[in-house]
Parts: sequence; C-alpha cells; structure tokens
Amino acid sequence: MGEGEGNRAYGHKPFKRSRSHFSDRITADGREGWPVEAGRYRLVVSRACPWASRALVSRRLLGLEGALSLAVADPLQDDRSWRFTLDPDGRDPVLGISHLAQAYEAREPGHPGGVSVPAVVDVPSGKLVTNDYQQLTLDLATEWTALHRPGAPDLYPEPLREEIDEVMEDVYRDVNNGVYRAGFATGQAEYEEACAGVFRRLEWLADRLAGQRYLVGDTITEADIRLFTTLVRFDPVYHGHFKCNRWKLAENAVLWAYARDLFQTPGFGDTVDFDHIKRHYYQVHTGINPTGIVPLGPDLDGWHTPHDRERLGGRPFGEGTPPGPVPAGEEVPAVPAAGA
Amino acid sequence: MGEGEGNRAYGHKPFKRSRSHFSDRITADGREGWPVEAGRYRLVVSRACPWASRALVSRRLLGLEGALSLAVADPLQDDRSWRFTLDPDGRDPVLGISHLAQAYEAREPGHPGGVSVPAVVDVPSGKLVTNDYQQLTLDLATEWTALHRPGAPDLYPEPLREEIDEVMEDVYRDVNNGVYRAGFATGQAEYEEACAGVFRRLEWLADRLAGQRYLVGDTITEADIRLFTTLVRFDPVYHGHFKCNRWKLAENAVLWAYARDLFQTPGFGDTVDFDHIKRHYYQVHTGINPTGIVPLGPDLDGWHTPHDRERLGGRPFGEGTPPGPVPAGEEVPAVPAAGA
Repeated sequence: MGEGEGNRAYGHKPFKRSRSHFSDRITADGREGWPVEAGRYRLVVSRACPWASRALVSRRLLGLEGALSLAVADPLQDDRSWRFTLDPDGRDPVLGISHLAQAYEAREPGHPGGVSVPAVVDVPSGKLVTNDYQQLTLDLATEWTALHRPGAPDLYPEPLREEIDEVMEDVYRDVNNGVYRAGFATGQAEYEEACAGVFRRLEWLADRLAGQRYLVGDTITEADIRLFTTLVRFDPVYHGHFKCNRWKLAENAVLWAYARDLFQTPGFGDTVDFDHIKRHYYQVHTGINPTGIVPLGPDLDGWHTPHDRERLGGRPFGEGTPPGPVPAGEEVPAVPAAGA
Repeated sequence: MGEGEGNRAYGHKPFKRSRSHFSDRITADGREGWPVEAGRYRLVVSRACPWASRALVSRRLLGLEGALSLAVADPLQDDRSWRFTLDPDGRDPVLGISHLAQAYEAREPGHPGGVSVPAVVDVPSGKLVTNDYQQLTLDLATEWTALHRPGAPDLYPEPLREEIDEVMEDVYRDVNNGVYRAGFATGQAEYEEACAGVFRRLEWLADRLAGQRYLVGDTITEADIRLFTTLVRFDPVYHGHFKCNRWKLAENAVLWAYARDLFQTPGFGDTVDFDHIKRHYYQVHTGINPTGIVPLGPDLDGWHTPHDRERLGGRPFGEGTPPGPVPAGEEVPAVPAAGA
C-alpha cells in the first residue's frame, strides 16, 4: 500500500495494484542472505493500511514483539511518502530516519518504485529487506518459529495450506483488493463490476462462516487475518469512501459476528487504530474526497457487543494459547464500550 | 433546491441556503393576483429534490393531480439548470419550454437568483408564480381546499399548527437543511457541528416517535411529509455522499419503521424515484464526488418489510381516506419487494 493510491482516481486505466519491488525473504536458514535473528529487523507499518495490519496481527499472535521491533508511520504521507512524524523530532528512534523512503534509497539508490508498507528494514545497514506484503506474514508464521512465544498458534498449518491459499486468493481478488478497485474506479462500469464482486464474495463468505467459526479448519489461520483487516475497515471507510455500500458489515449478521469475534480476540482488535484508518483514507485520497473532511461515523461501540460465535465450537489458538498484553508503547486508543 | 449547490463545496463560507426569490401565493381569494383554479398552474419538480418532493406528496395525499398538473425535470441539470430532457423533444409538453429558467425569465427578465424547484408556473402566461418551497405545501393544504378530493386529509389542522410549526422548524434547521450543511461543509469543524446536530435531532425524533405513530397529533401532517422526504434520502445519499454516517436509518429501529410506514402509505413511496435521487446527488455534486460514480447500494428491498407501527394507533388520514392510484404517466419505478 502507499504510493499515492489516491492519485489513481485521476488515471484513465482500471486500478492495478503494483507488485512489491523488493521480495527478499527472511528465512530460518538465511538462504537469501537474511537470517531470522532477534533484534536485527524493524517492521515498519501504518496502522491505517490493511496490508501492513496483517503483519501487526501476526506479530502479536506469534509473540514476536520482542524479536521484531515496530515503527509506526504517520497515517498521512507527505510528498516523500510514509514518514515518522509521530516520533520525537520526526525520526524513527531506531533507524534514525524521517522517511521510510530513506531505507528504500539505502537498499537501491534511485529505486524506481513507490514506497509502501509493510516494510522490513535491516537495522544494522538501514536497508530495506522486503515490502512483499503477501509473503511477509507467511514467513513470520513459518520461518520465524524459533522466536515464536510459547503457545503461539500455527497460522499456516501444513495440511490445510492448499485450502487456505485458495480461500485467500479469492478473498484477495474480490475483497481485499476488490474494495480498492471499486473505490478507485474511474468509470461507472468498472466500479459496478468491482463492487458487485465484493458483495458476491462477502455473501459467499457469510454462507461459509454461518456454520463454522473460522475460514479454514477450526482454528485461526492466515486466511482469517487477511479477511479481518479488510472487514474492520469496511464500515469506517470502504462503505462510504469506496462506495461499497450495498450493506454495512454491521447489517450482515454472520460477517459482523465473525469480525467482532476476531476483534475481541487478543492480537486483533488491540492492533486497530480507527483514527489512523479514517484519517488516512479520507485525507490522503483527495481524488475521491476533495474536501479532506473525515466523517464522524460510524459509531464504534458495537465492536464490543457479544458475538455468540463460541457456539460454533472452534479452538481459536489450536493447541496454543492467546497472546499476552500489548507491549508498552504499542497501545492503540480504546474503542468505546457498548452503550457508551 | 438547485442553483448548483454542488459548487458550494468549493466556497469558503459555511453552506447557506438561498431564500426563495419568488414568494407569491396562490390563494382561494386570489388576493395576490393568483387565484386557485383547476388546470391553470403547473407544478415543476425534480423527483431528486427533497423540497420539491414535499409538494409531490401533498398533491397526491390531497388528490390535486387533476387540478394541478405536473412537470418532472431531468435529475441532472445542465448549465442552464433544470431541464425537460425526459420529455419528447426535450420540451415540457404543456409549457413548451426546454428549461425551467425560461419561466423564471418570463416572470422577471434578467432575474438575479438561481433556478430552483419546486416551482409553480402560470400556464397561460408561462410565468413563474412561486418557488417558495416552505409556503407552497401549506397553501396546497389550506388554500386549495375547494379542489381537494373527497376524503382528503387535513395536513395542517388549525388546532395543531403551533406545534407543527415548532417541530418543522427544528427539523428544518437540524435535519432537512442540516444534512446539506454537513455535506457541503468546507472545513472539519463546520462539518462536525452540522453532522452532530443531525444525529442529535434524529435521536430526539426517535424518542418522540417511539410512542406515537406520527409527529404531531394522531394523523399524518405536513410535519411528517417534511421529515419523510429527508429520511427517504438518508441511506441512499446523505449517509455516504454527505457523510452523515454515525448510523444508517436502517439501523435505527424507530425511525426506520416510521419511514417505512410512511413509504408504504399511498401518496408517499409512490412519489419516490431512487434512481433520480441517486443520480442527481452523485453526478451533480462534483465538488464532493469528482468521479461522478453512482453507488450500487444501498439495497432497497427493506422498504417493503412490515413496520408494525399500527400497534401505536393513529389514524393516517383522520376522518378521511387514502388517495387512489397514481395517475397514468406519473408512475415511478417499482422498488424491489423484500427478499427480491
């Protein structure tokens, strides 16, 4: 994400997401030159971004907070893209840079692509290692195992990978990226095709989730993480700003309960900053929201209401346990309690 | 309404609705030179416009269709404002004009104000009589009585006028016009003040309507008509396009049932054209929707679901009766039945 997606609304071609330019992998055996190592890398995210938020959730569920430190960018980019204006003196305290672009530049001077999050930076050299948001969380789940907390769940279980990959591919095309294709469409037909596809897939997902607590198997997997980061943004931004408005998530009993169930699970809702989410989308995409005004709604107190999904069985963490509390300094603003 | 409201989003001053420039009254005694007379006047509306739609509802409830003929403008204005492109050869068949502006011009050559609907035009002279949307429906209810159908309701009953006026004033400021102030705000503080006011008043209205079927007394009055024309546009346009998004009408049990009750009452829903409404707002206000893309949602089938408001008592038409069917040629597209 990033790269001035808002400007796409001015283009004449259908919205196409850029491929990640840097796709090095950090592995247990270090075969690509980047071995898994506690304290060596820094994860750079925006809490606004659904792709970066996958990594935020995985890192929490797997207990990697101590091993992989976190830099949170300002939800509003400037003309040099993501920046560390939330930190003292406007610099990331570990990397010492003001803009994520500097880590891209350190990796490849004059690199041609945009600057996107999530990004993993090698702290000693200051160089970007990867911005491959599709591979990153799979590697956290499968390559970083030596650094997982005791009781960490298996988010990408071997016997279920084929099914997980299949579901994720459909969800990516129609939902994760489908909302962007709807929102950044420049023509009516292009918009309608994308928006219809979003709701067709959401209805398919609601059918699937009516009788089972999680998307694949009976535990939380990578597939749930990837659906969650889109669903949690649905009513706050995609419904209005991206015109995916056949119905609100809160109007679909199954998906709304599913999303609340995950939100209330440690590691999910405690990574979500609705203020960052709303300000980013509404203020950055001036091509579709020229005034930059950020809506007051939707009311958020519903996120804490009971979801009653336990009746479907399921073991959220499989043989494992929930993660502990959010590390100091990484807390997000509390969402008002129900009825507040 | 009209006058290129969309352009207001570019201004630097808070949104202010223009006063009607032509406020002559058509009266039973003809004291202002315009006597009530069957067949003499033509009501010009856009079905997109909430102010004009008040007159559409009143005319139906009172059975004035035969006495006061109807011209329906295209939901999309051009640079000469409201036009009759829906009619053969792009001309209103009775007035013989292509643009409503011509009736304004006939009344006052070089008139300074904008062109707005609703407008009543004197057919013999082709001159605009009034565009005073606040007075027009009150006069239909109280001055046109000789031409009302048998069984027409009293929409502005003498003993309740003080209370009706008071409710209508609050609803006008906070809701009817409040949604426009929110939608056309050019600054965050201006928007937030207006949007908060909309929902504060809606919550007050929901409290009031929880225990009584109609706003004032136990029958349909002018106050209900004026609230209805805003509520019916709430989820299709004000929620997303004007950012009045704390919750959807469909999420408020009382107001949603109240709006459905009226929608299903002959004379209300049969005047509503959701296609005109959505295309107008989303395509005309390029200041807040630069792409002009019209959303697919919201799903409309809920409008026909049972509302269960009869349990509150109330006599929709008082001592009167419901209006007959919509005259041929004035039908609006059907809204999909529930579950369709």
